[in-house]
Amino acid sequence: MKPADERFRALSARLRDFHSLNTAAGLLEWDMEVLMPRAGGEGRALQFGAVMRAAHEIVVADETGRLVAELAEAAGAAAPDDADAANWRWAEREYRRRRRQPAAFVEELAAHCARAQEIWVRARAKNDYALFRPELERMLELKRRQAAYVGDFADPYDAWLEEYEPGMTTASVETLFAALKPGLVALVSAVAGRAEAARLPTLAGSFPVDRQRVFGMEVARAMGFDFERGRLDVSAHPFSAAIGRDDVRLTTRYREELPFSALFGVMHEAGHGLYEQNVSADLRHGPLCGGATMAAHESQSRLWENLVGRSRGFWKRFLPRFQELFPAAAGFDAEGMYRAVNRVERSFIRVEADELTYSLHVMLRFDLERALLSGSVSAAELPEAWAAKSREYLGVVPPDAARGVLQDVHWSAGLLGYFPTYAIGNMISVQLFEAAPKTEDYPVLLAWLRENVHRHGRKFGAEELVRRATGSAISPQPYLKYLSAKYGELYGL
Amino acid sequence: MKPADERFRALSARLRDFHSLNTAAGLLEWDMEVLMPRAGGEGRALQFGAVMRAAHEIVVADETGRLVAELAEAAGAAAPDDADAANWRWAEREYRRRRRQPAAFVEELAAHCARAQEIWVRARAKNDYALFRPELERMLELKRRQAAYVGDFADPYDAWLEEYEPGMTTASVETLFAALKPGLVALVSAVAGRAEAARLPTLAGSFPVDRQRVFGMEVARAMGFDFERGRLDVSAHPFSAAIGRDDVRLTTRYREELPFSALFGVMHEAGHGLYEQNVSADLRHGPLCGGATMAAHESQSRLWENLVGRSRGFWKRFLPRFQELFPAAAGFDAEGMYRAVNRVERSFIRVEADELTYSLHVMLRFDLERALLSGSVSAAELPEAWAAKSREYLGVVPPDAARGVLQDVHWSAGLLGYFPTYAIGNMISVQLFEAAPKTEDYPVLLAWLRENVHRHGRKFGAEELVRRATGSAISPQPYLKYLSAKYGELYGL
Repeated sequence: MKPADERFRALSARLRDFHSLNTAAGLLEWDMEVLMPRAGGEGRALQFGAVMRAAHEIVVADETGRLVAELAEAAGAAAPDDADAANWRWAEREYRRRRRQPAAFVEELAAHCARAQEIWVRARAKNDYALFRPELERMLELKRRQAAYVGDFADPYDAWLEEYEPGMTTASVETLFAALKPGLVALVSAVAGRAEAARLPTLAGSFPVDRQRVFGMEVARAMGFDFERGRLDVSAHPFSAAIGRDDVRLTTRYREELPFSALFGVMHEAGHGLYEQNVSADLRHGPLCGGATMAAHESQSRLWENLVGRSRGFWKRFLPRFQELFPAAAGFDAEGMYRAVNRVERSFIRVEADELTYSLHVMLRFDLERALLSGSVSAAELPEAWAAKSREYLGVVPPDAARGVLQDVHWSAGLLGYFPTYAIGNMISVQLFEAAPKTEDYPVLLAWLRENVHRHGRKFGAEELVRRATGSAISPQPYLKYLSAKYGELYGL
Repeated sequence: MKPADERFRALSARLRDFHSLNTAAGLLEWDMEVLMPRAGGEGRALQFGAVMRAAHEIVVADETGRLVAELAEAAGAAAPDDADAANWRWAEREYRRRRRQPAAFVEELAAHCARAQEIWVRARAKNDYALFRPELERMLELKRRQAAYVGDFADPYDAWLEEYEPGMTTASVETLFAALKPGLVALVSAVAGRAEAARLPTLAGSFPVDRQRVFGMEVARAMGFDFERGRLDVSAHPFSAAIGRDDVRLTTRYREELPFSALFGVMHEAGHGLYEQNVSADLRHGPLCGGATMAAHESQSRLWENLVGRSRGFWKRFLPRFQELFPAAAGFDAEGMYRAVNRVERSFIRVEADELTYSLHVMLRFDLERALLSGSVSAAELPEAWAAKSREYLGVVPPDAARGVLQDVHWSAGLLGYFPTYAIGNMISVQLFEAAPKTEDYPVLLAWLRENVHRHGRKFGAEELVRRATGSAISPQPYLKYLSAKYGELYGL
């Protein structure tokens, strides 16, 4: 038998090909959302399916299974931050998750994701849930089958969750959410009772799209996003795509009357982008190149969007430039901007929600996904179930599908099990931000994040990463404390 | 054993996956040329290699070989335009060409093509052949190995040629070129002797890029190019890429002082694009979706560029709009434009060459490629050999690498053996144009081309396609006759 280091190299070469195919599929998806001619959808679905299948076949090949089995002992004996061992852990999990999923099924699911996304874009533009419903039904059927292939878990939702948040279970998410929800609901209620008295200002006017673009790029650059290794484009739903560590693409969407929607959207996606751009260079061509988990990833986007972008310091720094570009802001001082961007509203759209209600939008989706998985809510019943949950958690009922069930790309893109990571990301974002140096100097903040988070890529799970960076376990308490202090002051509670 | 039609379906499903991967690789390449962040090159090379390898593995799989062997008889007995039989012929050739090429070699070659292209773009911008030379050397080494893997041919160049022009051999190309060259050289000489006396006008001035883009798109639309199923973008070297029949992308480049460079470039690429967009819909997800051969493809680009774009009728129709966009053309009538766009010049750049000298640029490259393959000219000696051939064929010596050896993308993209197809395409373009209805009504011309050329996709080879459409074999005589008549009149020979 060859020595372990040779077999680790062989494993690494296989994973490199997997990663290349997987990121190639990422480009197929990015292109579809950003600039593909509309008629190209069916061909694109087939391409996406074929590339995802080829990637899958590398993971489930007998050779991968043999290397995983043979290297178990050597990987277990290695240091925790050893790249070979981390590669092995990645391979072991993926092999286990995928080995019972037939290649033809993987191809079919991937093709359906591409097809459904394309139809979702049209359904959302037309505000027509009926157009999207059959795609969702098929998606649920395929994703249920996938969960069954993946294996036996205490809760079938665990199989979905593990794709985005390995290391967590439905039960552990429920524990975190149970500790977060009462405090959050109480805080939202208290703020709602003070909304009139506190009277936080709104910024109204016209904010030309080309100037929003300029400002967004200036902010992203100030955060440290490297446009030599990335781009910013427009799509129906904002997202970031790491085609590679050195090719990180952000998208946003602009509305002339809403300057903060694109601004915080760009900061959010650039937060993801910084994570990808700052993974250690030696990990860049393999599956360890990326965020530890999606919650870890969301911690970075939410950190920049909220803890930086919705802070007093940010507006002290950027208000002059903002006013130069947008005369509508002429009457505001930095404190006024700070108050304007932190207005709490019971609103419909998650990606535009304030910090306080955001996690409630997530919990709503977490509940509905589990109901969809178990079958206790059908795709036909979903709008009604959404309305009920929205009333319960947010106190509002969306007036139409575009502001309700059709607002997110996730269910069309097959990203079931993803939503909880946003709320956990919120928790982690505060834990990390409190451990980082207190500074308005973004390069210093970025350097700390690079050292403590980004460079490790997927070497550790979220729990381990947070413990190394902060000394603590993932917890909702710092997040709740931060929200209470911030909104207590803003609303005079 | 399963019945033949079931096995044809199984073959077709395999080829569909191949085609999906192959066109996905096409998107990776398109994106690299058009908008990838510069730093993304290395990751892109790995992606391109991995996708091309996965496509290759489908073709060389035992299952493909078995289906090819088992279906030989049924395919031979089928009607010549039967899609299953055509799929089989495609699979048989690809299997034979690829089965001895190791997957790791295919991956390495593809990755090198992506890498070398990226370096070529930089070398060309810097006018620095030394920067590109090592990439060319490596390319020649890999392409020589590829020829050796492919098999025994009378001439090793046949192995390169077959990739783009199956059905032709080096000997048959030589025969066609031998019949073309003397007439062409004589015609160029005669025109050169009359250049002063005939005094064809030049159009000078400033032609804003955004207006060139508008005009190019209007012309492409008039030709019948469907922008709902395609795009037009900018790249260092103009090309067209069929990401699918319903996603056909053209690129061009603009120079403010040269309106015809982009215009004829767009017409050329749109000619390719029309071929792809008009393949029969039932072939659209398999390898028969594309041009019969590259000569057949170039016949379409050259037909629209030259026989349409460089005609009197075109300028009668488009001059008013051209003058509206470009005041510099105010003093011209249609006849003047016709004469201006048909000036013959002994020039350096193939893609900007007039019709008369164009095929000489091609023959120069055909000679040099064979010399590079045999080793009688090395990459180091290439600029000198280029200068000598250029003096011999064109009467001019390029002053630098950018206008000489670095001008074409082909050698960096691994497209060795491709060049002859341009000159054969010129021949075919005239044969087809003469068989088509005489009309200035482009929809009528397009309908004839769709019926006689496009819809068949890759069902037939070029020879068969031309015979079906025109009743004749591929021949340089109609092309020579057309050139003699056109340039005889223009230059008063």
